[in-house]
Amino acid sequence: MTKTPITVAYGDGIGPEIMSATLRVLEAAGAELDIETVEIGEKVYKRGVDTGMDPGAWDSLRRTRVLLKAPITTPQGGGYKSLNVTMRKALNLYANVRPTIAYSPFVETKHPAMDLVIIRENEEDLYAGIEHRQTHQVYQCLKLITQPGSERVIRYAFDYARTNGRKKVTCFVKDNIMKLTDGLFHKVFDQIAAEYPDLEHETLIVDIGAARLANTPERFDVVVMPNLYGDILSDVTAEISGSVGLAPSANIGDGFAMFEAIHGSAPDIAGMNVANPSGLLLASVMMLVHIGQATVAERVHRAWLRTIEDGVHTRDIFRDGVSQKQVSTTEFADAVIARL
Amino acid sequence: MTKTPITVAYGDGIGPEIMSATLRVLEAAGAELDIETVEIGEKVYKRGVDTGMDPGAWDSLRRTRVLLKAPITTPQGGGYKSLNVTMRKALNLYANVRPTIAYSPFVETKHPAMDLVIIRENEEDLYAGIEHRQTHQVYQCLKLITQPGSERVIRYAFDYARTNGRKKVTCFVKDNIMKLTDGLFHKVFDQIAAEYPDLEHETLIVDIGAARLANTPERFDVVVMPNLYGDILSDVTAEISGSVGLAPSANIGDGFAMFEAIHGSAPDIAGMNVANPSGLLLASVMMLVHIGQATVAERVHRAWLRTIEDGVHTRDIFRDGVSQKQVSTTEFADAVIARL
Ligand SMILES: CC(C)[C@H](C(=O)O)[C@@H](O)C(=O)O
Ligand SMILES: CC(C)[C@H](C(=O)O)[C@@H](O)C(=O)O
Repeated sequence: MTKTPITVAYGDGIGPEIMSATLRVLEAAGAELDIETVEIGEKVYKRGVDTGMDPGAWDSLRRTRVLLKAPITTPQGGGYKSLNVTMRKALNLYANVRPTIAYSPFVETKHPAMDLVIIRENEEDLYAGIEHRQTHQVYQCLKLITQPGSERVIRYAFDYARTNGRKKVTCFVKDNIMKLTDGLFHKVFDQIAAEYPDLEHETLIVDIGAARLANTPERFDVVVMPNLYGDILSDVTAEISGSVGLAPSANIGDGFAMFEAIHGSAPDIAGMNVANPSGLLLASVMMLVHIGQATVAERVHRAWLRTIEDGVHTRDIFRDGVSQKQVSTTEFADAVIARL
Repeated sequence: MTKTPITVAYGDGIGPEIMSATLRVLEAAGAELDIETVEIGEKVYKRGVDTGMDPGAWDSLRRTRVLLKAPITTPQGGGYKSLNVTMRKALNLYANVRPTIAYSPFVETKHPAMDLVIIRENEEDLYAGIEHRQTHQVYQCLKLITQPGSERVIRYAFDYARTNGRKKVTCFVKDNIMKLTDGLFHKVFDQIAAEYPDLEHETLIVDIGAARLANTPERFDVVVMPNLYGDILSDVTAEISGSVGLAPSANIGDGFAMFEAIHGSAPDIAGMNVANPSGLLLASVMMLVHIGQATVAERVHRAWLRTIEDGVHTRDIFRDGVSQKQVSTTEFADAVIARL
């Protein structure tokens, strides 16, 4: 097999630790990768590049079109833009795919039957970054919803559902208040749903939708929504499934794709070799499928699952009576490798 | 005791049923109320008044300054504004107080220890209602956050915490993205927190905050946040505590106050005498405290609690093995009255 070139960013905080763990597993599993490592995040910000992206990183991405990215710390203060948002927009990554599955009884959860995928619009909404100060006491931020932006992500959600054997696509909006913006998203959803008669569809107001998602997540399948709702609710579903530390995400565009954990860089535990690499590792599994190495993806996923099922747990998911052995980041990677 | 004048709106859908049940309980409990009934909602919309408010309703409110309101159905379509939002703004009801408590083991919940209050900013944010169409494919909605608006509700939250023996106030914002608008809310929160050294305070990014709220709500006490987050997350907390059907809310301003259930008008079960009047009844308890009839409030609250504890449940919270008797809306009110 020829090697697939990918770009890798080790990130900040716990980033380097979980990335090393992930890459060790991928290598041991026989992933055919030609890795270009780039610098993005803290160090680059400190050099005064206010996007946090080294110019070399863009060059690499133009070649590889695939980024495996550890979490980044964006410096505090008004001068810096979130690198995640910059990348999603610059690379036109319109769909953020966030699966959450409960691994009960191996990982403690109150929702053992949940198995759903949030597909989050990834470029628009309040994330458009248009904010201004009207007077020194009045600030505004613009929420942007467009027809093509909505259509792209909603179509992606229906295609994803079909390809992955899912049965229902649910849409969350607040169009009883935002009749134009969320109203447009709802309208486009209904139009596209009509093209997929083999799939069920429904729309819920985001407040009651979120309530049901948090209380009875097992009733949901694929859920598509504007950016900010998706940001909040994918953290909710990940956490109630067991831990935000387990959840991967794929940021998908037509030309590029970026794979990352949904959690942040957790500076408080950086360098302590205790972080759970699972979110990033499962993101790398999504990446392997994306680049056509599905067999390796399957191998890594199975080994990871056996590790979790054997009760070999990092401390974030370690529970007396459920877990067998508390391990460090590196030991967790070793345990996965031993099960490949 | 002289009677306190209040304005009452029976609302739409299940509104009239749950309002009748509530008022019967209040009367039996000896509440001293001089009730002015007004028309708002569906019928008024149909007469072409696009605020949904009868002019007489405003007159009544100017006299009584207190509204007990059942849910309203806002007609579909772009021409109508939400009456809730109209009222909150017109009456300057800046704080929306939404307590949620688990009544375990009497009402089934996965979160038996939760007992928290969300205080939601109630006039600003995307609810300002400023939306426009830029092209036929591009829509925008303005999110508005002001210094005085933030200050008022945050100060209310700290005062509420102090008065009600609460220990901690948590703030949710997304100021890693909305640095100006949510950044302002955060800044004002820190400033006001410094004036309340007797109370703990913390700020969480709304995504991880929501995740923790949904997974370990027992860790929270008072939580203050901008309007839309509060809308979504108060439905989440209510639902995971047992049912959105149990949750009351108080919309508080300096001159007026409005009390309502947090749920909607549920047209699908209207007229069937099955709705749970608890949300509105508990809202009326908050109203009784507000108008200085705390003893009656206590009496109603205790009788309601005993009804719930005796397992006399409407069908939304009826569970085999937990509940004793499934009752209708009117029977539930009778049961509360029998326990006064
Ligand atoms: C880090 C932050 C900008 C980001 C977001 O809000 O999208 C994160 O929360 C996520 O969900 O990927
Ligand atoms: C009916 C709707 C406009 C309202 C809101 O969004 O505020 C409701 O959901 C609530 O929470 O009171």
